[in-house]
Amino acid sequence: MTLTVQMLMRPEMVAKWRDALSQAFEEAGLDVTLAEDPAPETVDYIIYAPHGAVDFTPYTQVKLVQGLWAGVESVIGNTSLTQPYARMVDEGLAQGMIEWVTGHVLRHHLGMDRFITATEPHWDQVVPPLATERGVTVLGLGELGASCASALARLGFDVAGWSRSPKEIAGVRCFSGESGLEDALRHGEITVLLLPATPETDGLLNADRLATLPKGAVLLNPGRGALIDDGALLAALDAGQVAHATLDTFRVEPLPEDHPFWAHPNVTITPHIASETRPVTASRVAAENIRRVEAGEAPMFLLDRSRGY
Amino acid sequence: MTLTVQMLMRPEMVAKWRDALSQAFEEAGLDVTLAEDPAPETVDYIIYAPHGAVDFTPYTQVKLVQGLWAGVESVIGNTSLTQPYARMVDEGLAQGMIEWVTGHVLRHHLGMDRFITATEPHWDQVVPPLATERGVTVLGLGELGASCASALARLGFDVAGWSRSPKEIAGVRCFSGESGLEDALRHGEITVLLLPATPETDGLLNADRLATLPKGAVLLNPGRGALIDDGALLAALDAGQVAHATLDTFRVEPLPEDHPFWAHPNVTITPHIASETRPVTASRVAAENIRRVEAGEAPMFLLDRSRGY
Repeated sequence: MTLTVQMLMRPEMVAKWRDALSQAFEEAGLDVTLAEDPAPETVDYIIYAPHGAVDFTPYTQVKLVQGLWAGVESVIGNTSLTQPYARMVDEGLAQGMIEWVTGHVLRHHLGMDRFITATEPHWDQVVPPLATERGVTVLGLGELGASCASALARLGFDVAGWSRSPKEIAGVRCFSGESGLEDALRHGEITVLLLPATPETDGLLNADRLATLPKGAVLLNPGRGALIDDGALLAALDAGQVAHATLDTFRVEPLPEDHPFWAHPNVTITPHIASETRPVTASRVAAENIRRVEAGEAPMFLLDRSRGY
Repeated sequence: MTLTVQMLMRPEMVAKWRDALSQAFEEAGLDVTLAEDPAPETVDYIIYAPHGAVDFTPYTQVKLVQGLWAGVESVIGNTSLTQPYARMVDEGLAQGMIEWVTGHVLRHHLGMDRFITATEPHWDQVVPPLATERGVTVLGLGELGASCASALARLGFDVAGWSRSPKEIAGVRCFSGESGLEDALRHGEITVLLLPATPETDGLLNADRLATLPKGAVLLNPGRGALIDDGALLAALDAGQVAHATLDTFRVEPLPEDHPFWAHPNVTITPHIASETRPVTASRVAAENIRRVEAGEAPMFLLDRSRGY
C-alpha cells in the first residue's frame, strides 16, 4: 500500500527537503507518495516544520506527525495536535551543536578574543589553565546537552551537568533537582544552556541564579532564548558578575535591532545558527520512524506532553 | 647513593620548578640533591631549559640531560653537548596544544570572527558545514601533531596528516614523503603546522606550497616560526590564496613590533602560548627518565642527532 506523506512546511523548505526525504524513504523500503497539499483525511504521516497556526483536526488518519526541529514550543501550544508527535533528534543537529558549543567553550577558555580583536603589537605570554582546571557546566542533559557534555569531557574539561531528573554520563558530574542546580551553577566558570523551553525553565537564569555562578563566569546560550531573564543578564554583565555572554537564541528572533544585547561589548550574538536540522540525516530519522510505526513498533523521540518535551 | 641533579635554567624558572621536581623525585623513590650551581664533575643529571650558550664539556659524569622543551634547535647546535639528551614530551604540553589547535580550528571552521568583531546588528543565518565536510591537514605527526590530529578526527573533522616517514593514526589519512606532501596540502582547508624546525623544514611553507593549499585556506602555526617563508605568506594573504593565518611561533620572538604580521588584518598573533611545559606533569617525566637510566633501562624521548629531533 502506498503511504501518503505530507510535507507541511514553507514552500522554500519543500524544495530543500523533497529529495532527501524521497531518498531516505526509498532506502528504508517505504512506498510513499510525497505530497504538499493532499486531502487531509487521506494523509498517513506528516513531516512538519512548525510555521503559523495549523489545524490538525481534519487529519483523522494520521499515525504520526514527525517534526523537523528539536524544540516543541509551538507544538505544545497547539491543542488541535492530538496525534502522536515525534521531535527530530538528528545526528547532524547534535554534531553541529557539539561543534558550536566546543568551539565557543574553547574560545572563552583560551581567551581568544583579545588576540582576534588586537589592534596594537602586544606580546603578553599569559598561558591559560588546562581544560582539566576549567569548570564547565551544561544545564540540560537531553540528547544535545549530553552529547556536548561528553564531547567537552573527552577534551579534558572538568564538566558538570544538570537535569531535572537524575542522569548518568561517563566523565560528567551529573546533578539534578533544585539543590543540584545550585551546585551545578557554582561549578560553571563556563555555563552552557541546553534546556528545553517549558513554563518551568522560563527565565531560569534570573538574577539569583546568575549570582550563583562563579564571579566572571561566561554564559553560552545555544538552547532557547526564554531560559534567560534578559534584564538580569544585562545587569550581571554590567556588574562583571558575568564576564561575557555568547547567545545564539533569543526571546524574539531575529533579535530586534534595538535590543541592548546588540550593543553590549561583552555580548556576542550568533543568529540562531548553533545547529540546524540537516536534510540528509534527519530524513533518515523520519523514514525510520515511519517504518517503525508501520511495523507496529514505537517511534523514537515521541513528545511527552505531560513533561512538555 | 644520593644523585646530584642540576637545574640548569634561568633563576626565575628555578623558583617555578623546584617544588614540582622535588615532589616527582620523591614519588619516584629517587634520592636526589637538587642543585643550582654544583661542581660540574659531580653532577649526575641535568634538568635543562636552554638559555644562552652552555659548555657541557666539564660535565664528565652526566648520564642524561633532560630538556624541558619539545624543541631542540638550540641543543642541536651545541657541539659541547655530547651527553644523551632527552626532549620533554609532557602530557600537559600535548593537552595544551590540543586545546589551542582544536579551539582555533573550530574558530575558523565556524567563522567565529565575524560575530566576535561585529559592530552593527546583523542577522545573517549562514550555517557552516559540518566538521565531516571540512578538510583539515596536520603537517607533522610527532607526539604533538598526532595528538592534535586524533583529537580533530574524534570531533568529526576530515583529517589528513603528513610526516616524513609513514605513520598510521586511527581516523587520520596519513601521507608521507614529497608526493604525499602535495596531497596533504591540497586537502588542507585548515592546515596546522606541527613540524620540528630542521634544515629540511626551514621555509617549507614557501610560495609554491602555499599555492598548493585550497584557495582561501587558513593556516595555523603553533609549531615553529622557521617553517614559514614570511614574505611568501604575506603575498598569499594579500592575494586571498590564504584567507587567514593564526600564528603562535615566529622566526624572531617576541615578534618585532615592525613586523608586517602585526598590522595585517588577516593575521592573528598569539605570543607563543599554544603550549608550554607544565611543571607538575613534566617533572614526572624527568623523574621517570632518571629512574630508567638508574635501572639500566633506555630513557624516553632521546634526541636522535642524525634526524635532528
